[in-house]
Amino acid sequence: MTHDKLSLISDSYTFSTANGFFSAGIGDTPVWFDMFCRHIPDNGGFGIMAGTAQLAESLDGLSFSAEDLDYLRERGASPDFLDYLKNFRFECDISAVPEGTPIFAGEPIVSIHGPAVQCQIIETLLLMNINHQSLIATKANRMVRAAQGRSVVEFGSRRAHGADAAFYGARAAYIGGCSATTCSSAARELGIPLFTGMNHSYIQMFDSELDAFRAYARSNPNECVLLIDTYDAINSGLPNAIKVFREELAPRGFRPKGVRIDSGDLAYLSKKIRRELNDAGFPDCDIIASNSLDEYIIRELIQHGARIDGFLCGERLVTASSDPVFSGVYKLAAIEKDGEVIPKIKLSENVSKITTPCPKHLWRLFDRENGKAMADLLTLTDEDPGATDSCELFDPDYTWKRKTVTGFVARQLLEPVFTGGKNVYRARPLADVRAYCLEQVDALWEEVLRFENPHNYYVDLSQRLWDIKYGLIDELRG
Amino acid sequence: MTHDKLSLISDSYTFSTANGFFSAGIGDTPVWFDMFCRHIPDNGGFGIMAGTAQLAESLDGLSFSAEDLDYLRERGASPDFLDYLKNFRFECDISAVPEGTPIFAGEPIVSIHGPAVQCQIIETLLLMNINHQSLIATKANRMVRAAQGRSVVEFGSRRAHGADAAFYGARAAYIGGCSATTCSSAARELGIPLFTGMNHSYIQMFDSELDAFRAYARSNPNECVLLIDTYDAINSGLPNAIKVFREELAPRGFRPKGVRIDSGDLAYLSKKIRRELNDAGFPDCDIIASNSLDEYIIRELIQHGARIDGFLCGERLVTASSDPVFSGVYKLAAIEKDGEVIPKIKLSENVSKITTPCPKHLWRLFDRENGKAMADLLTLTDEDPGATDSCELFDPDYTWKRKTVTGFVARQLLEPVFTGGKNVYRARPLADVRAYCLEQVDALWEEVLRFENPHNYYVDLSQRLWDIKYGLIDELRG
Repeated sequence: MTHDKLSLISDSYTFSTANGFFSAGIGDTPVWFDMFCRHIPDNGGFGIMAGTAQLAESLDGLSFSAEDLDYLRERGASPDFLDYLKNFRFECDISAVPEGTPIFAGEPIVSIHGPAVQCQIIETLLLMNINHQSLIATKANRMVRAAQGRSVVEFGSRRAHGADAAFYGARAAYIGGCSATTCSSAARELGIPLFTGMNHSYIQMFDSELDAFRAYARSNPNECVLLIDTYDAINSGLPNAIKVFREELAPRGFRPKGVRIDSGDLAYLSKKIRRELNDAGFPDCDIIASNSLDEYIIRELIQHGARIDGFLCGERLVTASSDPVFSGVYKLAAIEKDGEVIPKIKLSENVSKITTPCPKHLWRLFDRENGKAMADLLTLTDEDPGATDSCELFDPDYTWKRKTVTGFVARQLLEPVFTGGKNVYRARPLADVRAYCLEQVDALWEEVLRFENPHNYYVDLSQRLWDIKYGLIDELRG
Repeated sequence: MTHDKLSLISDSYTFSTANGFFSAGIGDTPVWFDMFCRHIPDNGGFGIMAGTAQLAESLDGLSFSAEDLDYLRERGASPDFLDYLKNFRFECDISAVPEGTPIFAGEPIVSIHGPAVQCQIIETLLLMNINHQSLIATKANRMVRAAQGRSVVEFGSRRAHGADAAFYGARAAYIGGCSATTCSSAARELGIPLFTGMNHSYIQMFDSELDAFRAYARSNPNECVLLIDTYDAINSGLPNAIKVFREELAPRGFRPKGVRIDSGDLAYLSKKIRRELNDAGFPDCDIIASNSLDEYIIRELIQHGARIDGFLCGERLVTASSDPVFSGVYKLAAIEKDGEVIPKIKLSENVSKITTPCPKHLWRLFDRENGKAMADLLTLTDEDPGATDSCELFDPDYTWKRKTVTGFVARQLLEPVFTGGKNVYRARPLADVRAYCLEQVDALWEEVLRFENPHNYYVDLSQRLWDIKYGLIDELRG
């Protein structure tokens, strides 16, 4: 399952083109790349950044083994390129938006600066880490918002796309706001709260459901969540659970943690179960639901008055099944030639595929009064929108749509991860990252949070950056 | 990215319920479990089995570290259960359908027999491995069938759900029939052919497209695939490519391998490019296409006469994006009590969720004359449909639909992977697994291969197995 061959988890072209740079004598040319996403999954209003910690881990100490070099040699790599890889020392500057931050299409979420050959080699590792975890964090946050304060637990390991997807999927889901995971490994290693329960085959192992519940309550009295729908939730599971709560837990001073339903009409069942649990003296016993849940089902259950306290979300969360691709791309923004920074742009018939050139800074403007995010602004690196009290924003496509904003605080979003190849990433406790995420999502206007047709949050360019971009387009088109 | 904590890549309930078995004194009860899938992704007629090799690797030598035990102790595991885990020795028998075999909903693709507590503990690892790789192998095979003999290359690492998803996704895609991967690591370690090319930012690094092509052709003369759509495929990319083929490759005795187009109208462009390459004396130069391809787009391109020789399939393959969940489940089939095998069934209001009890064998009946697969048959372990010349098949739901088949060869599909906890898995070279897959898919009737409304291949029960199953249903319902 696991393997430590990350150096070559890399699209083959990263090596063949790096080899090409070498032969052409431009391998050391300083360049700037941006990673940005083209659109947000599920047509959402924003994504959640995640995966920076693993990006830092995987690039820290990146090196190439003798076997790596042999393989590349067989594939036609030139001797001088192989020499370079043998003595590889990572030199790039990388900055990234902190994990847990809401992100928008078209803005740089990772910014890379370094020798051309190095920027090329790290492309796949960088994209893979950020694309995967941002995908799951974004999906988790949607489910968490749908649950309106009720807990959402990640429980998808069995359907994850391999062990990394299970482990880091649990991590990203927690960043996006999940309250716990059922992946024991991720819980232990990353300090995520663990949720525990039982499955149907456990119950089938016993002569009766009652015997199964008794054995479970005896051996797990402190976290007793009983699955009550193996035979008949209302007529068998619930009365048996209540009996066991009374006979096994109460005398030993434990309260039941919950009952779980995994089939049937979850709204109807949960209301009936709530009444009976209350009547039986267990108003504090949670009702947990599972069964291919996602944000839409959760929202509808709540709209229909379901009395569910926690949602277990499996395959649709850990694979982000409704839209399982995060569209992060990695594009050249500038190169340095003879000491001069030359902006680079990629044109396309498809306007959304045209890139924004230049080394850049990314700013988020927050309303000084209510703390709400007003807009994001891309600028050249020598610009600071916070330097003056007002800032003119305009739509990059419809430039007559302009407004001047005042009373804002401008915060730079890109933070250093590597400086001159040195890992300077400041890892934060995962619970803090999660809290930061929920707080930053709260700073977005409600209109951006909608699932359907969310408001198009402003991601604007400074006038100077706009002039360079559209100047280049004119030049290349002319 | 990587981690060696597979022992706890496991839903927490596998430990809490194993703990429950222990306390109830039934941890050693011999049990039988089946893994089967409930439906085939994309409403396909069949899936492709994959992941058995990694299942064998991950269970071979499964053990629990002191840290694992500490964590489980904190979570309330009992001392005797912890003792058991400390001295854990895997004892189960596992058999599985060989990798590359076409599989159908409702039939056991993995069969497990062993002590209850062990069968419980391995559930998540087993499901995760098989669900992930079978998902990707199934999707790859769809794309390969759509391509009708043209090559399909896996190229999705950057959008994979982590490093395992990239690496083992490349493996599964190759099993399903892809001809190569761009994931260098998977290619090197697993012996998959590597496909190499270039990207747009490589070209942007040079003063001109022509310079970029020249440098690439010089450094990669033997596998020269040029990406021609950075500026204008027809008016710039193609003429520049032809110039470089003539000036850089021909004098050194190399033939060009291909040109790639990644945007625009692929059908139109490919026809035009084909003519011009032929006219220029390069009829052997392949045209490779990419741009979010899947089986439907490939099929339509071919229907419209596209002259494409190879398809690079990325995100839609490596995430199986149209239906990214393989629905494998793990269900109790029987337990042994006082020396007697007691069949177990799980009922459900949803008929497709009712399980088939008993330890079972899975047979595929092949037509002796034309080699075509006629039906799959589940039997008790002491039955052999090959023992007689004729076999009566009947629909398990509509039992009046019966037919007697003759002239068949019955092949048992489940092969040993572990015997008494010992790994007896016979690893085959991956190229052989791929060839076996393509050959076995060829043995299916065309009606099963359709993308839309494929024929429902027969997965029937022997009369004795049917009698036990429906007897149990009557008993539990009555």
